Amino acid sequence: MAALRSSAIRDLLAVASQPDVIGLAGGLPDPNLVPVERIRNAVDAALGVPAALQYTETTGVARLREVVAARESARCRRPVDASQVVVTHGSQQALSLLAQALVDPGATVVIEEPAYTGVLQVLRSSEARIVTVPLDTDGMRVDVLADLLASGERPVLVHTVSTFHNPRGVTLSADRRRALAELAERYGFLVVEDDPYGELYHTTAPPESVAVQSNRVIRLSSASKTLAPALRVGWLVADPKVCTAVELLKQGADLCGSQLTHLVAADLLADESWFAAHLAGLRAEYGSRAGALREAVDRELAGAAVLGRIDGGMFGWLEFVDDTDTDALLSAALAEGVAFVPGSAFAVDGGQRHSARLCFTTNTPDRLRDAVARLAAAHSR
Amino acid sequence: MAALRSSAIRDLLAVASQPDVIGLAGGLPDPNLVPVERIRNAVDAALGVPAALQYTETTGVARLREVVAARESARCRRPVDASQVVVTHGSQQALSLLAQALVDPGATVVIEEPAYTGVLQVLRSSEARIVTVPLDTDGMRVDVLADLLASGERPVLVHTVSTFHNPRGVTLSADRRRALAELAERYGFLVVEDDPYGELYHTTAPPESVAVQSNRVIRLSSASKTLAPALRVGWLVADPKVCTAVELLKQGADLCGSQLTHLVAADLLADESWFAAHLAGLRAEYGSRAGALREAVDRELAGAAVLGRIDGGMFGWLEFVDDTDTDALLSAALAEGVAFVPGSAFAVDGGQRHSARLCFTTNTPDRLRDAVARLAAAHSR
Repeated sequence: MAALRSSAIRDLLAVASQPDVIGLAGGLPDPNLVPVERIRNAVDAALGVPAALQYTETTGVARLREVVAARESARCRRPVDASQVVVTHGSQQALSLLAQALVDPGATVVIEEPAYTGVLQVLRSSEARIVTVPLDTDGMRVDVLADLLASGERPVLVHTVSTFHNPRGVTLSADRRRALAELAERYGFLVVEDDPYGELYHTTAPPESVAVQSNRVIRLSSASKTLAPALRVGWLVADPKVCTAVELLKQGADLCGSQLTHLVAADLLADESWFAAHLAGLRAEYGSRAGALREAVDRELAGAAVLGRIDGGMFGWLEFVDDTDTDALLSAALAEGVAFVPGSAFAVDGGQRHSARLCFTTNTPDRLRDAVARLAAAHSR
Repeated sequence: MAALRSSAIRDLLAVASQPDVIGLAGGLPDPNLVPVERIRNAVDAALGVPAALQYTETTGVARLREVVAARESARCRRPVDASQVVVTHGSQQALSLLAQALVDPGATVVIEEPAYTGVLQVLRSSEARIVTVPLDTDGMRVDVLADLLASGERPVLVHTVSTFHNPRGVTLSADRRRALAELAERYGFLVVEDDPYGELYHTTAPPESVAVQSNRVIRLSSASKTLAPALRVGWLVADPKVCTAVELLKQGADLCGSQLTHLVAADLLADESWFAAHLAGLRAEYGSRAGALREAVDRELAGAAVLGRIDGGMFGWLEFVDDTDTDALLSAALAEGVAFVPGSAFAVDGGQRHSARLCFTTNTPDRLRDAVARLAAAHSR
């Protein structure tokens, strides 16, 4: 959904919404796995009180902040108070308000490359000076960040999609999380740990949050990937000073969120046994889809491309080893009836021309196998 | 809900949420008049399609844009296409995104004084140069604006709450609407006609929209006052170029609104006979409340204060003619069990010390009479 860098790619993908095109380009949960009936019940319960449709606090409905604080306390392995939580209109709004609160024009911000396009857009609006650090199979190259800091770079923020990276699929290793936290303490920057996918692991939980190691970490997460995007419930966890700054900006930005959807999210997140079973279902289903994607790529594109490791989240990162230009491949792929996002869409300074982001969450294993066959046909042309 | 200028007043009013205090300070619809059952039915219908809980277009659900375009066509007396509508997270978000799109730091923006605090906050964030024009009983003093323009002021935007002003209660007369449109054409500024209350007239519809007279008018409105704030559905109507700029900014701000609440709003707004009856009910009930407030003020505060004319909306403007300082009165009033917002909260450059904004929508006539009796008791202390 976030802005793609190349409007040419955006125009191409606009064509991709035709029903005969298998879409691997999105970044969406499968609507058939959204708990519609549980949400219907929660809406019914919430509407028992007329105030459910009234304005609410700018920082979010108190009950939701408490439920999130309890979950984030487990994530951070320390007590997180509700006053340290601001509920935002998806975690994209948290990014946007944080940039407004913390990033002056010209300030240096470090992001990962390939980049989550939503953070790029926000930082460009803030007129930040963007410095990139590459990713490898263990996530952000924290050693490269250390070199940048040693050479004098002084970022105000370092942004990382620490777990099941968008678009790269990788997860920051435990050692690098510790190293990143140490650098934040030593150099005084804030880490924005953008973590919408962490709950969507397939078999093994990811390493502990970077926030376990340091108080200089602002965590962002969301109900969009685990419950439903239309709740528009994301959140940030930060110290009360940052929360107050974000609250004032949110007041000007949109007054407040929807009390109704906040109450629904609170109901579902607080229903621990139901939510655990729901997550278990998502993990199993998305895990089997990722497995189907891997098998198909290994079979159909052997020798031409390698699919990166997938342990959770929504994306696999396909790297062509035969010099295929994925911008060019996209046109051929659309003609064969499959869409993906070429790596160049996530490049900050160009590059990423031989890679592609494949979303595996919105199609069944059979459709995914079909999609990869179409991709292989496009590639062989 | 918007930021009050004085944190002292905000702190005082935080105390005012106690149940024994009658609240005239808010700016809320009465939750008991929100059509809860109709909304419950609309949610049920929307949830019949799983995609109702998915992400949606940044500019809003297509069906809602079409319904709004049809209503706004009637308002503007010309065909408004859905491509000229962006659905925002309440009309506050429309204000905020417009300011980002159109107001560079240092640019001149004209607003009315006393001011809607939400616009003040947004313009201060944009580092606009704010120039004020006073209001009288016929709304904005467009003659004063004309003098400012003649003397060389070149605003990029002129913001007006044209109908049932917040906080001042007044409505811009038909003559002044024409004059304002002519000035916009002559000097090339844009008018932002902020119109969340226009449907809430008591007996007589307000004059035609300023947009009838000029294409240089961006209209803002909202479902928050007529349906429910928790839908978080507002909108702007502007030319496609402005809409595209706002869309790009909204993508960075929060990706998109809630498909679910957009579908609900579209359902209710498109159900014309139901909506007409619903509005008729609100007009009658709010009209009777405004009448009760007027009678009580005329009786209890005769000689001390005058309540401005109220033809609709949510607010009456009380002006003390006996030098009462309403900041000081607020403390006494809270002690008597009634809350209001003193005029100083809406002042841009100080002043408005002898006036108060009274919200009449959230209390029954009996409670309003009781509230004014308490206010009179506080005044007589």
